[in-house]
Amino acid sequence: MQKNFVVKGNIISSKNPSELAIHENAFLVCAEGLTAGIFPELPEEYASFPLYDYGKCLIIPGLVDLHVHAPQYTYRGLGMDKELLDWLQTYAFPEESRYEDPDYAERAYRIFVEKMRTNATTRACIFATAHVPATLLLMEMLEKSGLITYVGKVSMDRNAPAPLCEESPAVAAAAVEKWLKTSLKKYKNTKPMLTPRFIPSCTDDLLTSLGRFQKKYHVPVQSHLSENLSEIAWVRELCPYSSDYGEAYEHFGLFGGNAPTVMAHGVWPGKREFARIKERGVYIAHCPQSNTNIASGIAPVRQYLDAGIHIGLGSDVAGGSSDSIFRAMVDAIQVSKLRWRLITQDDAPITLDEAFYMATAGGGEFFGKVGKFEEGYEFDAVVLDDENLPAPREFSTHERLERIVYLGDDRNIAAKFVAGRKLFG
Amino acid sequence: MQKNFVVKGNIISSKNPSELAIHENAFLVCAEGLTAGIFPELPEEYASFPLYDYGKCLIIPGLVDLHVHAPQYTYRGLGMDKELLDWLQTYAFPEESRYEDPDYAERAYRIFVEKMRTNATTRACIFATAHVPATLLLMEMLEKSGLITYVGKVSMDRNAPAPLCEESPAVAAAAVEKWLKTSLKKYKNTKPMLTPRFIPSCTDDLLTSLGRFQKKYHVPVQSHLSENLSEIAWVRELCPYSSDYGEAYEHFGLFGGNAPTVMAHGVWPGKREFARIKERGVYIAHCPQSNTNIASGIAPVRQYLDAGIHIGLGSDVAGGSSDSIFRAMVDAIQVSKLRWRLITQDDAPITLDEAFYMATAGGGEFFGKVGKFEEGYEFDAVVLDDENLPAPREFSTHERLERIVYLGDDRNIAAKFVAGRKLFG
Repeated sequence: MQKNFVVKGNIISSKNPSELAIHENAFLVCAEGLTAGIFPELPEEYASFPLYDYGKCLIIPGLVDLHVHAPQYTYRGLGMDKELLDWLQTYAFPEESRYEDPDYAERAYRIFVEKMRTNATTRACIFATAHVPATLLLMEMLEKSGLITYVGKVSMDRNAPAPLCEESPAVAAAAVEKWLKTSLKKYKNTKPMLTPRFIPSCTDDLLTSLGRFQKKYHVPVQSHLSENLSEIAWVRELCPYSSDYGEAYEHFGLFGGNAPTVMAHGVWPGKREFARIKERGVYIAHCPQSNTNIASGIAPVRQYLDAGIHIGLGSDVAGGSSDSIFRAMVDAIQVSKLRWRLITQDDAPITLDEAFYMATAGGGEFFGKVGKFEEGYEFDAVVLDDENLPAPREFSTHERLERIVYLGDDRNIAAKFVAGRKLFG
Repeated sequence: MQKNFVVKGNIISSKNPSELAIHENAFLVCAEGLTAGIFPELPEEYASFPLYDYGKCLIIPGLVDLHVHAPQYTYRGLGMDKELLDWLQTYAFPEESRYEDPDYAERAYRIFVEKMRTNATTRACIFATAHVPATLLLMEMLEKSGLITYVGKVSMDRNAPAPLCEESPAVAAAAVEKWLKTSLKKYKNTKPMLTPRFIPSCTDDLLTSLGRFQKKYHVPVQSHLSENLSEIAWVRELCPYSSDYGEAYEHFGLFGGNAPTVMAHGVWPGKREFARIKERGVYIAHCPQSNTNIASGIAPVRQYLDAGIHIGLGSDVAGGSSDSIFRAMVDAIQVSKLRWRLITQDDAPITLDEAFYMATAGGGEFFGKVGKFEEGYEFDAVVLDDENLPAPREFSTHERLERIVYLGDDRNIAAKFVAGRKLFG
């Protein structure tokens, strides 16, 4: 696989969390799968590299989806009439139960993976189901797709319907460990991630085992945090030993620090919890469409950004209907305006540049040096063609980006590269 | 033009504001441009009519866009960083000023009209600019498109930049009357509509003239109402004689009653204003995306529906970025959940069936017997193909509709009919 090449076009990447750097008609060099630099003229040393000239197209870092449920892709856009806890019981759990059948899993995951391969996402943190065979099947497919992902066999041994609820903490823990041993070194681009569904689904014994596996296998962690008010109240009942939701994970070694952690949502963080998210380096996966669809609320993204907390975007399919991280950018901006209008004018709305940062570098950092076109960063890139968005006058490069984010869809994605490998285009 | 035919497919139409009627594999008959009925078997009397068999496709009434600014289509998806009054000065007014140039208007309106022709909208209430030649050009193009629309030359003689602000109330009134005389009987499907931009843009003298024209020419009225808090405060200053924004229009005979009226937004209606909207039969054009993008707030749609107030949906391009009324349906549902969560749990979220009603029959009624497949209704229909939305299992017809609304785009629009005339498909 060819990992030395040059792409030419209008290069856009975050300079910092609130500002883009735009290089028009520039050369972006990929050497050994890493960004070597952006140049107005191609330096002599790269003259022998093959050149992909994308003309007037925009070239941006690949988008990162920090939170998506692969098995829920089936019913995205459906079941939008309930809050979280009822929604799980009515839609999510029955659908996920189907993945015990490998044939169903194969048919459904094929659709999901093909969509992820062809959208603008290059990296993702993915929830599977509690089933090990179906999860391995998903990992196999993702590996073939060329995407770079973390995948979690979901752990859940309480408060779920029988076909999905693991029999006991011991059975659940054994399943995770077996799956970890099978998958940990099997793939180059697809890695396992510990995935307690959320506190209400996991007994203390199971969480204790997961904390132990984290230390033993050094795998990262993903789960859900402070999404919905009823859920938070329930966690308070279930975990009398913790002062807040985050502490319930931390108690078991599943909340940042030496355990790299992505927590979805954080819509209603408590003050102590907010501070611990920062201190422990926990990543927040902001999922604005899901938080709207299941009426959770609007996360305090301005506060996360201002505090320097790690934050990226998640589609959260199927709480979110759309797999598009461009759509998540728009949703993040839009709900931030409603938060400003309806909750507090202390939290200024999110700008396009900030949404772009969250979608690229903000989430990308969880994967290492990912999400920017800076020297030494892994070369994830998406080429965007806006030919199909006609206008009677010229726009700046920044305006063209904004138009694609708001108005575009998969037809605007002309090419995609992941870690220096061209997937298409 | 052929106005007698039969379409076959899965027919969906509102039974009432909160419930859909679904007829699977049914025959929908159009006779002389009107719906003659829906039949499980084709009655003998229509056996000679040509049959369009759309197989598994869904067939729904055409969508109605009760509020869209044609000249702003140019910059949709841009300038999303300001509230209403600054947004108008910074983006809307400078762009609209360009339409003094007929060449620019021609290039820009061609793009707008082609988009409206090919999306799922069959009827619309459209704002043009203050310029008569450009407005007539737009009407000419719309007439050729096959859509049925009301178009407004915008009236504005204060608080706008020089190139757009009409010189005096007399000049502004003369321009409207000349335009009315030219356009009133010129087109079959494209009719003029009185369009005071909003109270802050129109002197009392101009509004007096518009009220006079309404009575003289029996033309309908469109404008903006109680969209944004700063705007409402300004109207209060400008119109000391009125107790609220609505009364400022009513004072001049421009608020329902004998003057059929569409008012966009109504995000912050006062109690008296709300009652008058109902009493005067004023239509509310609910524009959820715009109200989010320019941080206006969330309209009390549940209250409008429960009160039996006329309400439809508007894209409000370019306050709204998308021209799609499917997107407006989703936005209406989504923001209603945030209203429920963040403002008052008295206002239950809007359901898909209610959003569908607003998008079809709710707005359609402004055009007469439009927006349902009931006997005697004008035959506006859109055929939806969901082949490109793969899934590993079967869905009900209602679920298929919900998926298209949430996940679809123009690729799902297989055919479109307006008043019995097939536009494409």
